[in-house]
Amino acid sequence: MSRPGGVLSPLRKTSSMNRQFRLAARPVGLPKSSDWELTTEPVPEPAEGQVVVQVLYISLDPAMRGWMNAGRSYIPPVEIGAVMRALGAGRVVNSRHPGFAPGDFVTGALGVQEYALMDAKELTKVDPGAIPLESYVSVLGPTGMTAYFGLLDVGRPEPGQTVVVSGAAGAVGMLVGQIAKIKGCRAVGIAGGADKCRYIVDELGFDAAIDYKSDNVAKALREHAPGGIDVYFDNVGGDVLDACLLNLARRARVVLCGAISQYNNTAPAKGPSNYMMLLVTRSRMEGFVVFDYAARYAEGGRELAAWLREGRIKSREHIVEGFEAFPDAVNSLFAGANTGKLILKVADPKVASA
Amino acid sequence: MSRPGGVLSPLRKTSSMNRQFRLAARPVGLPKSSDWELTTEPVPEPAEGQVVVQVLYISLDPAMRGWMNAGRSYIPPVEIGAVMRALGAGRVVNSRHPGFAPGDFVTGALGVQEYALMDAKELTKVDPGAIPLESYVSVLGPTGMTAYFGLLDVGRPEPGQTVVVSGAAGAVGMLVGQIAKIKGCRAVGIAGGADKCRYIVDELGFDAAIDYKSDNVAKALREHAPGGIDVYFDNVGGDVLDACLLNLARRARVVLCGAISQYNNTAPAKGPSNYMMLLVTRSRMEGFVVFDYAARYAEGGRELAAWLREGRIKSREHIVEGFEAFPDAVNSLFAGANTGKLILKVADPKVASA
Repeated sequence: MSRPGGVLSPLRKTSSMNRQFRLAARPVGLPKSSDWELTTEPVPEPAEGQVVVQVLYISLDPAMRGWMNAGRSYIPPVEIGAVMRALGAGRVVNSRHPGFAPGDFVTGALGVQEYALMDAKELTKVDPGAIPLESYVSVLGPTGMTAYFGLLDVGRPEPGQTVVVSGAAGAVGMLVGQIAKIKGCRAVGIAGGADKCRYIVDELGFDAAIDYKSDNVAKALREHAPGGIDVYFDNVGGDVLDACLLNLARRARVVLCGAISQYNNTAPAKGPSNYMMLLVTRSRMEGFVVFDYAARYAEGGRELAAWLREGRIKSREHIVEGFEAFPDAVNSLFAGANTGKLILKVADPKVASA
Repeated sequence: MSRPGGVLSPLRKTSSMNRQFRLAARPVGLPKSSDWELTTEPVPEPAEGQVVVQVLYISLDPAMRGWMNAGRSYIPPVEIGAVMRALGAGRVVNSRHPGFAPGDFVTGALGVQEYALMDAKELTKVDPGAIPLESYVSVLGPTGMTAYFGLLDVGRPEPGQTVVVSGAAGAVGMLVGQIAKIKGCRAVGIAGGADKCRYIVDELGFDAAIDYKSDNVAKALREHAPGGIDVYFDNVGGDVLDACLLNLARRARVVLCGAISQYNNTAPAKGPSNYMMLLVTRSRMEGFVVFDYAARYAEGGRELAAWLREGRIKSREHIVEGFEAFPDAVNSLFAGANTGKLILKVADPKVASA
């Protein structure tokens, strides 16, 4: 079955349908299967200036949970009935923009679907020759930028200072600790379970790890950050944030990146009881949103790519295969099932769609 | 009954005894009368380099509640059995330091007592000729410095921005709003009760007031700070802090000065549930301690004194008379009984001790 659009893109899969996960209801607590609707429709045709991308990798991020909620946030909520928002990487299969040709690899907010109809300006072309494509939704994507700009621009660590990061075996946390080491800091990671703790110390070179599931975090911080915490990069909120606030050094910076322990609350979030330690220690707590740094992604990407090539940072991807695995895979983030960056692999980049 | 020390200080009251309020127990919740011990001892004699000061005014500050607690803070706790720490103003009655003579007026951490034995370096000489002595424990003392440096150095308001302050009819809050107006900002005060709200708008020139006892604070902020809050100067914590966090503008600054609503808690403090609005709005929350600005007090004092003389700021002192009124007076802070700066008047500066 050939269709007219086929003449524009020899690589395009001419007969495919597009499956999509749409938000069916606003989740209360952890998303349930009934909060999703799996829809199927024809692969769209691009209008002038548009590009159709076959989605290969979907970035699974704790932040997605927030996008499912109504209310004021740093980005509008996903509407009920809309395709779930997601960052991803894929291959152009059809283009009506001169800057993109079928076969090009691209990244962007492709959504949780198999084919994405995008305006050309929403896409970034990438070269997966030297660096695997999945790295572009991990260390070289917004995940890496979050670690890079959050730590360096908001946290501003100085050589010899102590950087503590929670969610330390997760996508952002693993990078924060490694960048801290590159910058001459002591890096202490907080993670859940002995395996993750071993991983960040033995494989990634963190100076110490604290297992929040078995250790008394406040006490362990007194041991591993005896001079106090200069930068705390918070991915989790809750009790771990409170324990870190108790152990701040003077003029510390608490970087608010996320609060994964609170995202599926059905009651109001637990605010940090020890927030007045910010006064006691003359410290600041500051939030940031990586998208604000879009104009500087190239700068961050260059440095991260160089560190990756030089082996100064390691990236680990935790890949789940199959489009239909999305609902369970995204929920596994909140159980801490992943070590490294959780990615949904929708199709193999080495297999051209035909 | 003359004593040998009398020859050094003709003004010194030669037969007086010194009464002192000492901390008898660490209060649980609001201090009780049994948490204090009223002691009497002879007025001390100065050693070489020391000065004896008759205490005239004692500054009553919400921060005193924190000083009564054990544990890590920005200043060591008052020890059990020690004279309660307090800032004050008084008159030198006996000096063995060439820089101070009987009759000089001074300020310093004199303590809750009628006579203070001080090292000369702990005292600052003041001239109550042009400006009443009580102003030196109010707008020209650490109270004024707290408003000045907290707002200008930590909050960094820009002309046209909206500054919101809680505890707005209190010692620090009344100054924060007035300084914000001088700097070209919109000033919105949050206070308890119609009288305080009228006072800050009609007498002090705030643009708007919100009565946290009768208004829905979050809703009132949407009305009175329609473009969002650029600087929130927090004296109270609790629900008011949470309401302000919901209404921050982009890149807002939350200045943590105090948390009077939480000081007498017997359970852990209520952390701000909405703290992740700092991320949503890319804002920061920062604590400070006025004593860190000691080297710049002269700078702040000059500007505040000029504004006071020019009538650009008004100061209001709420004076309670009589040394023995201390325990009830300090507790009245937590009931919000004062409008303006609460001061305990121990003796009249116009009456020389004889």
